[in-house]
Amino acid sequence: MIPFGDRLSDAVRRRGPLCVGIDPRWESLPLSFRQDVADLPDGLRQAAAFERFGQRILELVEPYAAVIKPQAAFFEQFGPAGMQAMQMILRRAKEMGYLTILDAKRGDIASTATAYAEAAFSPQVWGADSITVNPYLGADAVEPFVSEAKKTGNGLFVLVRTSNPGGGLFQNLTSDGQPLYRHVAGEVAQWNASSVGASGLGSIGAVVGATHPAELAELRAVLPAVWFLVPGYGAQGGTAADLRAAFRADGLGAIVNSSRGITFCYSPEDPDWEAKILQAAKTSQAELRA
Amino acid sequence: MIPFGDRLSDAVRRRGPLCVGIDPRWESLPLSFRQDVADLPDGLRQAAAFERFGQRILELVEPYAAVIKPQAAFFEQFGPAGMQAMQMILRRAKEMGYLTILDAKRGDIASTATAYAEAAFSPQVWGADSITVNPYLGADAVEPFVSEAKKTGNGLFVLVRTSNPGGGLFQNLTSDGQPLYRHVAGEVAQWNASSVGASGLGSIGAVVGATHPAELAELRAVLPAVWFLVPGYGAQGGTAADLRAAFRADGLGAIVNSSRGITFCYSPEDPDWEAKILQAAKTSQAELRA
Repeated sequence: MIPFGDRLSDAVRRRGPLCVGIDPRWESLPLSFRQDVADLPDGLRQAAAFERFGQRILELVEPYAAVIKPQAAFFEQFGPAGMQAMQMILRRAKEMGYLTILDAKRGDIASTATAYAEAAFSPQVWGADSITVNPYLGADAVEPFVSEAKKTGNGLFVLVRTSNPGGGLFQNLTSDGQPLYRHVAGEVAQWNASSVGASGLGSIGAVVGATHPAELAELRAVLPAVWFLVPGYGAQGGTAADLRAAFRADGLGAIVNSSRGITFCYSPEDPDWEAKILQAAKTSQAELRA
Repeated sequence: MIPFGDRLSDAVRRRGPLCVGIDPRWESLPLSFRQDVADLPDGLRQAAAFERFGQRILELVEPYAAVIKPQAAFFEQFGPAGMQAMQMILRRAKEMGYLTILDAKRGDIASTATAYAEAAFSPQVWGADSITVNPYLGADAVEPFVSEAKKTGNGLFVLVRTSNPGGGLFQNLTSDGQPLYRHVAGEVAQWNASSVGASGLGSIGAVVGATHPAELAELRAVLPAVWFLVPGYGAQGGTAADLRAAFRADGLGAIVNSSRGITFCYSPEDPDWEAKILQAAKTSQAELRA
């Protein structure tokens, strides 16, 4: 299989760097999706609506995005049935030719980390092309994810500098002259090095929030061969101008996530919700390609 | 509901500080559990065996442990069916009067963190009494878990100093004269403060590995009202002597996890596996109470 980093380069060349986040919330769904499942029992109702909504999003945004990112938390809220809805969306996305990021922010040690990684990439379980990973437990806890990703031709995005307002509390603590996130970035560079493919980018990426433009530029400079997954664009306040620093000169190197800004850019009663999603995705694609 | 910290004090007074970790691995299961499900399709087979094995563990260790801790990764390996097995084990544990820790090491921001916390505590989803949480994303990412725990009378265990050999890579980086894990510990103390109940202990705990006795003692001194979940005892090399420092003078303050050392202390072919589990649990209980 072509390694994840190169597959991502190809995808971004084709359709631009927009990643559509699938973060379903029951109360925000278009009314018809809630009405269609009204007879199902609680829990199964939400899971069924999430699956149908996710599938419709995949159909709508296809011309504008090559990457989709389901957020595991919103599916986990409805238990095993919710997780199955996520599984079905990931499968359909793959059939449609999307690259997928399972946003699960997993992290654990040794064989436990391997279990999470196998679940992420196994076609029998989530079958994602990549997963987000939390580095707090150290290199020996991330390495089982790295090994499993490389073995299967898939990828990771390690949390480096997150987009939330309080993300700096620990990530900006300075030790040996460098903030914690730079120490993490140094490890990411090493994990990524042996995976750099024909496109000049590797399969072990970093999460760096759009809400920190200076840090995006700093990290771009020190991680030239590392893919960035950039959350925080749109609803969280990051602008297209803030994001320029995330890209390499060749226009590759970053994928930019938008979730609510595309999938919930309307009110549930709005009959024109599909047109609004199309418009939001089209506008985002154009902005990010500019 | 009585707050988690006080419920845990009561549980530890009754049956001691042993927590039994339920980390099922297909290849380690007693042979009969694998034979009983041989006709089921792959995936469902393992999930069914995990559920039956977990239920049997609950029955066996009941006299020796008041707390059990399923490891989400091993259930997630078998997708929605695996997660359902975990759900059934958590439900049965609660019916039997156990306190439960969902070891999922979740962490995300804002409403996403709230979704994970709701899933952890909702009786319709995992229905756990507590969940392990990763602090890398900062205080504003942990606080939704703290709020949800307090609102529902449940608890958290925030990763502070993990038991893996490389856990210090980031956790020991020193900033402003203190290692990262002490900065995290400071936040835990604040989150915990308003939850301290009649037993003198609160509901927002810390994960501190048995493999670091000096750090256990240091953290015990600075976090007198915080429950510690201590992994690393037994199979990972921590001894009962290493653990003494984790306890307060009143014998409370720490629960000590053992997973493989109890649930897989035999070979799969061994007809006496149940007797061996009973013996291992009894010995651990006695060691930890000594």
